[in-house]
Order: sequence, then structure tokens, then C-alpha cells
Amino acid sequence: MEYIFSDRVQTLKPSAIREIFKYAADPTVVSLSAGNPAPEAFPAKEIAEISARLFETDPIAALQYSVTEGYSPLRSFLTDYMKEKHSVGSELDDILITSGAQQIMDLASKALLNEGDVVICENPSFIGSLNTFRSYNARLVGVPIESDGICIDELENALKREKRAKFIYTIPNFQNPSGVTMSLEKRRALYELAKKYGVLVIEDNPYGDLRFSGEFLPCIKSFDTEGLVIYAGSFSKVISPGMRVGYTIAPKEIIQKMVVCKQGQDVHTNIWSQLVCFEFLSKYDFDAHLSKLREIYRKKAAYTMQLMDENLTPNITYQKIDGGLFLWCDLPERVDMQKFCLDAVKNKVCVVPGTAFMANPEDKTNSFRINYSTPTDEQLKKGIEILGKMAKEL
Amino acid sequence: MEYIFSDRVQTLKPSAIREIFKYAADPTVVSLSAGNPAPEAFPAKEIAEISARLFETDPIAALQYSVTEGYSPLRSFLTDYMKEKHSVGSELDDILITSGAQQIMDLASKALLNEGDVVICENPSFIGSLNTFRSYNARLVGVPIESDGICIDELENALKREKRAKFIYTIPNFQNPSGVTMSLEKRRALYELAKKYGVLVIEDNPYGDLRFSGEFLPCIKSFDTEGLVIYAGSFSKVISPGMRVGYTIAPKEIIQKMVVCKQGQDVHTNIWSQLVCFEFLSKYDFDAHLSKLREIYRKKAAYTMQLMDENLTPNITYQKIDGGLFLWCDLPERVDMQKFCLDAVKNKVCVVPGTAFMANPEDKTNSFRINYSTPTDEQLKKGIEILGKMAKEL
Repeated sequence: MEYIFSDRVQTLKPSAIREIFKYAADPTVVSLSAGNPAPEAFPAKEIAEISARLFETDPIAALQYSVTEGYSPLRSFLTDYMKEKHSVGSELDDILITSGAQQIMDLASKALLNEGDVVICENPSFIGSLNTFRSYNARLVGVPIESDGICIDELENALKREKRAKFIYTIPNFQNPSGVTMSLEKRRALYELAKKYGVLVIEDNPYGDLRFSGEFLPCIKSFDTEGLVIYAGSFSKVISPGMRVGYTIAPKEIIQKMVVCKQGQDVHTNIWSQLVCFEFLSKYDFDAHLSKLREIYRKKAAYTMQLMDENLTPNITYQKIDGGLFLWCDLPERVDMQKFCLDAVKNKVCVVPGTAFMANPEDKTNSFRINYSTPTDEQLKKGIEILGKMAKEL
Repeated sequence: MEYIFSDRVQTLKPSAIREIFKYAADPTVVSLSAGNPAPEAFPAKEIAEISARLFETDPIAALQYSVTEGYSPLRSFLTDYMKEKHSVGSELDDILITSGAQQIMDLASKALLNEGDVVICENPSFIGSLNTFRSYNARLVGVPIESDGICIDELENALKREKRAKFIYTIPNFQNPSGVTMSLEKRRALYELAKKYGVLVIEDNPYGDLRFSGEFLPCIKSFDTEGLVIYAGSFSKVISPGMRVGYTIAPKEIIQKMVVCKQGQDVHTNIWSQLVCFEFLSKYDFDAHLSKLREIYRKKAAYTMQLMDENLTPNITYQKIDGGLFLWCDLPERVDMQKFCLDAVKNKVCVVPGTAFMANPEDKTNSFRINYSTPTDEQLKKGIEILGKMAKEL
């Protein structure tokens, strides 16, 4: 049988990162290529406790079918929490619990994108989201990212030029892969441009709570007086990614369409995990938990940056980070980045070549991504020392 | 802001069943409109036990990111189990763990359907799947279902006529909503027609294990020498629907595309629940558990059919069932079915009008669906007695 696939998936390929993970699976290779939270960051004891209690009191609630919109007390809790804590959400908005924030990208794309519509994104950006947009045959237009966030002039040029632009996709805090945080001025400017050109914004914020230094900045969604912003929140980095629980706060009409799409996609998000998230958020000290996480990542990032300063400079440079899970390393122009990454794997350390994160294959980059949260300190030392040796030979 | 949605969701509406659920939420209304497993059918004690053990031994495995294809030991177990028990799966096939069987419909549609492609389905059929196909702008062509399954002549007519037919969607066991099981002859005939016309088959089998009388019949997938059948399995009816774990056994190339689509949709299925399913299937007596379920449903269905025989005949007729969760009731032609269902709600019993399950709005039916698994025996008695009173007045 010769299978004929839909046009939208004809050219779709597995994520380039996944291919790299194959090398990373070799136990002798130090993987700096993942994006997993540090294992010590999981509130495993509390989750076990909550789950045991759920099964003692009302197991059927955790096991039976539930509603597509999500567990109602969790929705209420998050609505209040995000409003009070982050000024996110207004009477224009509604909330939907999703199977991780990845599903928000899919549902928003399905509800909004016709084939050939344009998504404007930071360049580089998170490959998982870019691949979802591609899977609906959207055209990606990348706007360069600077040390304080997306280049606003280039963003306006793109909005002027691209009449079919449907939304801007941005990760304002500790962007994956660049580690960059968008300045307050640029957040406001981006929102004003969205308003001026009548396009929507997807604000993806998985790392916002993982700020271990510098000052907290308001979400773009907190300026959203017009109903332009789809805010994507996730518990993957602050509770557990394996449970696949995320949430979106977005204009009511958009949420309605996303609910209908979700109904046909997975009916509802695992209700057991929704109950666990609700209990953890509402009955435990979530702020204390976040402080603990920030401390874990502050230490680990400081150690990593110290190792990088000692080993990689001057040939490999990088921008210091104030949070999140990733560091973006720049190679000198004369160096072939792809070859460097391949040589690194041969030398038993795995990093992700920057090309994986570019909006289009022709977009150039000479950078690669390092993750510091997944490896142990020992692995970090070993991996960065190997890269350091390679850096000296450049 | 005026939102412009994609063409594919412009006309998409929330499931008609959901609208009916609003009435059913009134605690004074007896709901015969759901499709939930009986609460006493959940292995709650075993799940609690397994989960506690997981958190004692390796909590990180349940909480960390995992791979898109699904938990490898679960995939291996199911591959062997389905091969040995049901002759499902060959060297042409691979297996993918999904977030419920509903996601199989979405991933297969995304991978296979261009806008305007045709899906041939039984008429009536499961509204959740039909809505997923609709969400990719597929055209649905319904083929009448008879007491022994889909009408094979009409199926061939449809295949001859519809050059853009991409797949046949069928629920061969205890079909939702009709309760009908396809005969062995028709299973073979359907497969031969798929082969002859070069179309694929999605065999959706959520209720196959819930046979409480009559003889077990082989899956269509067990005849699949050519790689035509996408088999959809689910733990929603035999372990827990709230956990959202399903699996598909399908030709390798199709699985590959579905994996890429799933990566962009939810990265992977809740790994905690995958681990629980694996432990329950592999370390407990799953066959004994299924026997227990069959006994629960045998009793409950017998009680329901007895009530129906006592109360509904002769004005409302139905076909006896050998398994599954649904009964399909036919009204005399002279009766306005929609009005009958609305009157039923006013009389405090909620059933689902058959139109909800038709492939196209113009397809006629004078039937409605009853679910017997969710209500208590007391509720069944009360609800069917109300319907009986209405039947007498017809």
C-alpha cells in the first residue's frame, strides 16, 4: 500500500532535537541538549501525598470522564491567581485547561490559521511551537531577537509587509533557546503594534516563574485591554511536565473555538493530574515551592556560567541569564557551527545546533543551545570542559 | 476586536450531546444521555496501590518528560498482548500511545485528510469522531447500519462514487450509538472492499472487551495483510477514562506521521497514567478484571432491557445488546423524535436524539440513544418508567 498523506504533513519532519536525542541516549555522551526540569525540582512527596488522599476520599473523581474546559475549581483558582498575582485576565477572557502548553499552540493554530497564513515569531524560537504552526501549513516569518527581546523595528516591517499575519508568537521570559528576556518597553511596543496592525499575540510563558535574579516584568497579557493576547501558562516547569497540564487565558470567543477543537482532540486533560495540580496550588505553599525552585536553578545556573567563563571564553561567548533553563552560545563567524556540534557529539557532549530553532531553513545562525537544568553538576563540568577544549582549538 | 477564525472551525459547533448535558446537570433530571463507565467498574484500589508504589520507588519516572511514542514497556506489552489475544498487529505495524482514542481520530485525520476529502462512516456513528473529521473539513458520507453491521452494498456504492474517499470509519463492536455488532462476514467484506478500492479503515474498538453475551468476533485488523487498518484501542472503558490513555496499532508509515503530529499536539501522553496502565496490565490479573466488568454490565444491561420490555413496548422498540454501553430506541414514524426527546427532558429524563449521530444534517432518523452504564439501578427504573409513560401516550 502506498500511503498518500495530507498536504500539511507531507514535508513535516520529526523535530531536529529529537534526532540529536538519539546521540544523547548513549550513556557515555553528556547531554546538554534536553529541556527537562531538574529532577530535584519536582514536589514528588507532596504529589504522592495528594494523590493518596484523593484515592482515599473520592477515587471516581480522579478516574471518570470530565469536562473539556477543565476542572472547574482549578480554572477558578488560576483565574483569581493570575489576576491577583500578574494582572492577567479580564472580563473579556476565559480560561481553558490544556494537555500541556504545547496543546495551546495546536488549538490556537487550528482555530485561527488557514493554510498560507503567516505567524510572526522571534528568530530563533521554540522548535516545538514552530513545528505546530508548520503543521497547519502556516508560513513562518522570523524577526531577529536582540539582547532585550524582539527587534521592534523589524517586527513593524514584518507586520507592514505580511498582510496575512495572524498572530505574533513570543516567549518574553528567558526565551527558548536564546535565554533572552524582553524589556518592559518592548513588551509595550509589541502590544501596541499588535493593536495597530490588528493581529493577535500568543504569549508563551513557561519559564516566567523561574526568575532567579533581576526584576520581575509584567506579562504582555497584563496590557491586554483589547482582547488580543492568548496567554499560555504551564505547570511543566514548576510542578511536573509528565502530567501534561497547561492553561490558556484568552478572549472568550477564541477559548470557545479552542474548546470545540480540544473536544475532538483529547476530550479533556487527564483529570487526576488536574486534581493534583489544584490541590498543590490551593492547599500547599506554592510561593515557597517557587522560591525553592528559583534557588535550585540560581545555584545550578551560576555554576554553569562559572564553568563557561572558565572554559569557553574568548572563542565561545554567551549572554548571562536571569532565569529559565537555556544558554545560547555564539561561535566565531569563521567556525562552521553544524560541524562544531557534530564534533561535539563525537567528543561525547551533545548540544543543539541553532539552526533547529530558526523560522526558515535559509535563516542563518552561528549559535548553539545549552541546557543546564537536566545534567548533574558533574555532567555539566565534564561536558563544558569538553566544549572548552574544542573552543581552544578553534 | 473582531476575530477571524480558520475556515475549518467557522461552522464547527460544540457537540449536540454537550448541549443536552446542560439539562442533565440538573440533579432532578435522570440522565440516560452520558457514556461514562459505571463507577463500580473502576479498579480504584489497584490504581491507588500502583501509584503509591511508583512514588515510593521512582517518582521522577512518573513526573518527568517522556517520549512521544509512549512508554516503551507499555508499547511492548500491548504489541504482544494484542498479537496473542486478538491477532492484531504484524511486522507492517507499529504502536503509538495516545491521549485517549479520541486523539487517534485527530492524528489520523491530520495526517491523512486534505480539505474536501471523504470519510465514509456508519450512519449513525460516534459524534466525537465525526466532529473530529469535520474539524479537518472532511466530507462525511454515511452508510446505513443494519442489525448485523454496515450495509455492504451501500458501502460499495459509496466507494464507487466517492473518488476522494480516504478511509472508512467503523466501530464493529457494540457500536455507539446503535449498539450493533458487525457480523464476521461483513467484517471480511468490509476489509475486501477497502482493499479493492484502496482506502484505509479506522477500526475503533473501545467496547470490544465489554461483551457479556454471544460469541467473540475477530477484529477487522486481524485480517490486515495489506496494511490498510488503523486500529484504535482505549483504556477508557476498561481501566479509566479520566486518565486519557489509548493506543493505535497501524502501518508504520502512518504511525510515523501521527507521531510527528502528536509531538506538536501534546508532546506525549501523561506518563504517570501510562505507568499505571502498564503496571495494572502486566502485574495484575487483567482477564479477571475484564470478567468482573462483563458481569457488572451483563447484570445492568439485563435489568435495563427488562425495564424497557416492561415499559416501552410496543410503541418504542430497540435491538437487544450483547455488550457495550448503549441502547438504540426506535420511535414510530408518526412521532416527532426531536419533540419526544425535548418532552422527555421536560419530564425529567434526558436521552440523546439520534440526529446528533448522523453524518449529515439531512440524514433522517427517528431513534434516540439510551446509556445504561452511568445511572444507578434506581435512576434507570425512574427514567425508563417516565419514558414508558410517554410511550403509552404516543
